Amino acid sequence: MDNKTKVKIENVVFRAGMNYLHKNGFYWIPSIPRLVKATGACENIDTLFEVSVNNCKLWFGKDNESRHKAYLSQTGQLYLESLVPELGKVFCVGSSFRAEPVIDDRHLIEFQMVEIEFDGGFDELLTYIEGFVYYIVGALYDEGMLQSNIVSCPYVFPKTTYDGAIDTLQNMGEIIEWGDDINSSQEAKLVEYYGNIPIFITRFPDPSWDHGKPIKVEKFFNMLPDPDNPGRVLSADLILPNAGEAVGAASRVHEYKILKDRLINSRMFKRLVEKGGSIDDFGWYLNTIKERGSVPHSGCGFGMTRILKWLIGCDNIADAVVFPSNRGTII
Amino acid sequence: MDNKTKVKIENVVFRAGMNYLHKNGFYWIPSIPRLVKATGACENIDTLFEVSVNNCKLWFGKDNESRHKAYLSQTGQLYLESLVPELGKVFCVGSSFRAEPVIDDRHLIEFQMVEIEFDGGFDELLTYIEGFVYYIVGALYDEGMLQSNIVSCPYVFPKTTYDGAIDTLQNMGEIIEWGDDINSSQEAKLVEYYGNIPIFITRFPDPSWDHGKPIKVEKFFNMLPDPDNPGRVLSADLILPNAGEAVGAASRVHEYKILKDRLINSRMFKRLVEKGGSIDDFGWYLNTIKERGSVPHSGCGFGMTRILKWLIGCDNIADAVVFPSNRGTII
Repeated sequence: MDNKTKVKIENVVFRAGMNYLHKNGFYWIPSIPRLVKATGACENIDTLFEVSVNNCKLWFGKDNESRHKAYLSQTGQLYLESLVPELGKVFCVGSSFRAEPVIDDRHLIEFQMVEIEFDGGFDELLTYIEGFVYYIVGALYDEGMLQSNIVSCPYVFPKTTYDGAIDTLQNMGEIIEWGDDINSSQEAKLVEYYGNIPIFITRFPDPSWDHGKPIKVEKFFNMLPDPDNPGRVLSADLILPNAGEAVGAASRVHEYKILKDRLINSRMFKRLVEKGGSIDDFGWYLNTIKERGSVPHSGCGFGMTRILKWLIGCDNIADAVVFPSNRGTII
Repeated sequence: MDNKTKVKIENVVFRAGMNYLHKNGFYWIPSIPRLVKATGACENIDTLFEVSVNNCKLWFGKDNESRHKAYLSQTGQLYLESLVPELGKVFCVGSSFRAEPVIDDRHLIEFQMVEIEFDGGFDELLTYIEGFVYYIVGALYDEGMLQSNIVSCPYVFPKTTYDGAIDTLQNMGEIIEWGDDINSSQEAKLVEYYGNIPIFITRFPDPSWDHGKPIKVEKFFNMLPDPDNPGRVLSADLILPNAGEAVGAASRVHEYKILKDRLINSRMFKRLVEKGGSIDDFGWYLNTIKERGSVPHSGCGFGMTRILKWLIGCDNIADAVVFPSNRGTII
């Protein structure tokens, strides 16, 4: 596909997605920072890029006493979350940076995410995700840029719990145990099973719950426990045909004490401490919630380059955008 | 001003600006990279942030033979420029990163820029800048969010050459010589002189010209020499009341040999070499122009946070956005 076609598709996709959010009352926050403390990290803290100035990592801080490290943001989630009590519905658009050591056809080290947070619950969250994706597909179709033989998108997506997905995969003969991560080829098998349309896998194992054994699948510390399913969180991954996991979504814990406990006991935080970090890295975030309080809320991150891979139908994610960055190709 | 009001203004400003560009046939390129080689540097190469992984700076590259450094982008200009022959009119929106060592009320270390490049000349460029700013002001006014006693914006902006601005400042009694940088308090005096509306300073000294003495004002290497004014380039800075320089603009050199000569002889390139860089950092950019050729083109970067400072009327640029980042305040 030539650059011009790629750019035209990318334009329609981003504009439609942002228009959908605008129509639904979300405020765009262009100034969400990308140069951040550890509050810009997702659960994959090992893939954080570090930032320095003239070989000095401890360049940041008001004065010599408060010097600290800085990183490239993997997610704007916590910054958006802090605005929900005041603004209700917010979103951001921009780069997510991940130091993926291996060059493959599914990962980039910089890719575009649209992230939303709002003062609502889990069902509403899934409806927004369906609406966002459906609206984009409709806009591309209207512009005559969608090959309907590749992309099929219903208004409501099939949903399976994580537990159900493990059962389904085991029944297919896949070697997977409850607690394992569902790998990309298994995601593809599930998508095929549901008819090659977008599907949700919901209610993943709670990382803070004692499951009696270590679990491999790893979810963000502030996902909200599902009141109806002990040991599960109100989370969802959207899996797309030919692209795999494209959206990570969850309702969030909003109570200070529970949040702090979950953070301190998370694997992500333990690895941060090993890297020289501390609870101070999350100081502004915890203090905001402690002092101002928060409200029940939910949110997600749309991996736009994965969505483009699905819509374009290319084999390599690097072919989905004009300037793909992986470890070997930055310019 | 509370966060909600700030966010509402920011929303209108960014949406209006992007709509103006869309109406005028510009394509948005969301995947413009922010994690880059030295082609993401502007003339202030000393303020480049370096990026590393697990303390390793030479992490980037396809294999051990091709390992190289990476930086945070200061501008998407060269990436946009490379698309002009194929796409005509393009723009990007995102963070510009500058390692400003001093915390003041005019600079941030991360701020939002909207950048455009298109296959046209200098007069058209100035018209687009006027149109973009006027359209934003109109949109804010329509939404009832503009205090007309602070912001005044005509359809066409006064223009003075750099030479004329130096004369005017000298006549005011300012201590400034031809070749000097016009500092922020002098910019403010010029703006006041023209009636506290946006003004252009145009046709700065050509950095590649032998002026018979060193010149302090520093412009980007690929600005196009003005055929009618020897020793000057077809460049313009937009100066805003209460915000100073908010847009840097120029027609660009598009001929390979001239471009390479200007790059190699630039002060920016000499400093890059001192930092351990080389002409290879610009390899993809020079090769693209050598192999595919280019077309006459022009472009600019809108410093959106400075524009917001003007529109809001705040004293400190940190008060113009919800998440301002300077050396002491990143979160």
